[in-house]
Amino acid sequence: MIAIGIDIGGTSIKGAAVDSNGSVYEVFSMPFVKGESGENSIRKLADVVKKYIDKHNLKDKIVGIGIGSPGSLDTDLGIVNYANNLKWENVRVADIMHETLTYPIKLINDANAAALGEAKYGAGKHYQTVIMLTLGTGVGGGIILDGKVFEGNEAKGGELGHTVIVVDGEPCSCGRRGCLEAYSSATALIRETKKAMRANKNSLMWKIAPKINLVDGSVPFEAAKNNDPVALEVIDNYIKYLGEGLLNFCNIFRPNIIVLSGGIANAGDFLFDRLNKYLKDYNYGYKRTPEVKVVPAELGYDSGKIGAAALFFN
Amino acid sequence: MIAIGIDIGGTSIKGAAVDSNGSVYEVFSMPFVKGESGENSIRKLADVVKKYIDKHNLKDKIVGIGIGSPGSLDTDLGIVNYANNLKWENVRVADIMHETLTYPIKLINDANAAALGEAKYGAGKHYQTVIMLTLGTGVGGGIILDGKVFEGNEAKGGELGHTVIVVDGEPCSCGRRGCLEAYSSATALIRETKKAMRANKNSLMWKIAPKINLVDGSVPFEAAKNNDPVALEVIDNYIKYLGEGLLNFCNIFRPNIIVLSGGIANAGDFLFDRLNKYLKDYNYGYKRTPEVKVVPAELGYDSGKIGAAALFFN
Repeated sequence: MIAIGIDIGGTSIKGAAVDSNGSVYEVFSMPFVKGESGENSIRKLADVVKKYIDKHNLKDKIVGIGIGSPGSLDTDLGIVNYANNLKWENVRVADIMHETLTYPIKLINDANAAALGEAKYGAGKHYQTVIMLTLGTGVGGGIILDGKVFEGNEAKGGELGHTVIVVDGEPCSCGRRGCLEAYSSATALIRETKKAMRANKNSLMWKIAPKINLVDGSVPFEAAKNNDPVALEVIDNYIKYLGEGLLNFCNIFRPNIIVLSGGIANAGDFLFDRLNKYLKDYNYGYKRTPEVKVVPAELGYDSGKIGAAALFFN
Repeated sequence: MIAIGIDIGGTSIKGAAVDSNGSVYEVFSMPFVKGESGENSIRKLADVVKKYIDKHNLKDKIVGIGIGSPGSLDTDLGIVNYANNLKWENVRVADIMHETLTYPIKLINDANAAALGEAKYGAGKHYQTVIMLTLGTGVGGGIILDGKVFEGNEAKGGELGHTVIVVDGEPCSCGRRGCLEAYSSATALIRETKKAMRANKNSLMWKIAPKINLVDGSVPFEAAKNNDPVALEVIDNYIKYLGEGLLNFCNIFRPNIIVLSGGIANAGDFLFDRLNKYLKDYNYGYKRTPEVKVVPAELGYDSGKIGAAALFFN
């Protein structure tokens, strides 16, 4: 079985045919034109998809088109209600795609698409309950129960990054304070790294990033791996807050596995060993409560496309 | 259709026949004998149930026996792994019941049973996604998705009270710090009430509870309803922390409704009006995110029995 999986992002819209083994065909890409109306962008996308299907001779093989989009969606009607990153409001994606293409269209939140991809074909393969967090500029969440995305009422749930772990804590983009996102996003790690660097002019981190605006999420990890005490404290603190958030999801869902993606997940064993130790040390107290492993995502940038296509592989 | 629903508690074991309309027959009750082995307690329970079924002439009408128990359960095998309140460890409930009775036996966590009862026949009736919290000595949680209990891996999820809302906050019975339970249980409210009373000897609360050990969860509510500023501050603070916890569940599940039970839920509109306002004020920022109502439970002490029986009414 083959479906098209599409991933709409703030810089480009990418897609590919994906088969029900999770194999990804040649990827197509079109720029996301800032300022263009959502309607026009989707019309162009429909043309690109049509040409792609013709080129690969897939016309009679495609069972549907899955589209992952950021923002708040009406998945029943195939509408992007509101996507701040794209500056889209009430874009009738499914209807517009249907002007050009007759395949069934399914819309899915981009974080959910990535989670579904990883749960079915990546790091969460073979597991029933999978939680995925994308640690990027923000923190996206996906909840996979019995192989299906759990979306909540009107598909507005799954906002795992917007769970407060520190009442009255750091301000969050959502308007509340103390959300997990405000402590475990790359943005938050960079904020804390800069704070520590400003207070410790001798930190190794100044060698890695001689100017403060060069700091990204890899800087504290690189320095910590080289035993810089300031960086180690930044990382320990980061792991503590992220660990507390993950333990919350363990107690709520008791998932089989938690998958982390995003730039920070590239820190490798140095991060995952510490994070798994934290989760083990504070695992819920009842005897025989199964421990939850945290692992890096495996599908990279393809997870969203694969997950969007996988909406048709139930 | 009729099933037996049983609720095992630390002072008594109660049960009743329940029909698939949620109607509860005459309730039977036996004392929970502290110090007696779990095996003996269950053997006695089986005898009580057998006599009850004979007395009510239900022998050929019962489709199964649902048993709600506190603690950590193996719901597949019908074993109470560990229940601190009961001092039970590895009690093979289903096997022992089957020595006397041939009906199918299903075991369910007591908080989940109450949630299922409320979701199917009480305050959550007609709704798809229902979250229930029981605000008592601790905070029990239940997650109902599509009319079914979500239990997580090995039925060890759903511990909504053990989600940290203040990293490094108040110590919790589970070993972590800052759990929702440590801020929104009756125990927590009483702790904060006593603290406020000790610091404010003129508070009206001293009239209601002339000795500090008379303080229960109703004291600050009663005083606050009479405009005692100290009590109002205690209640505002209580609502803030509980509200933050509930907002977390809104963002994770975006449920249709949240149901609260336990002694504190008896505080009535005074509590629920303020709580609903808090949830409305901090509702997740995307446009058109549906608001979540918080309502009191409707079934009282019967919710557990009804929910346990309802395991057979799918």
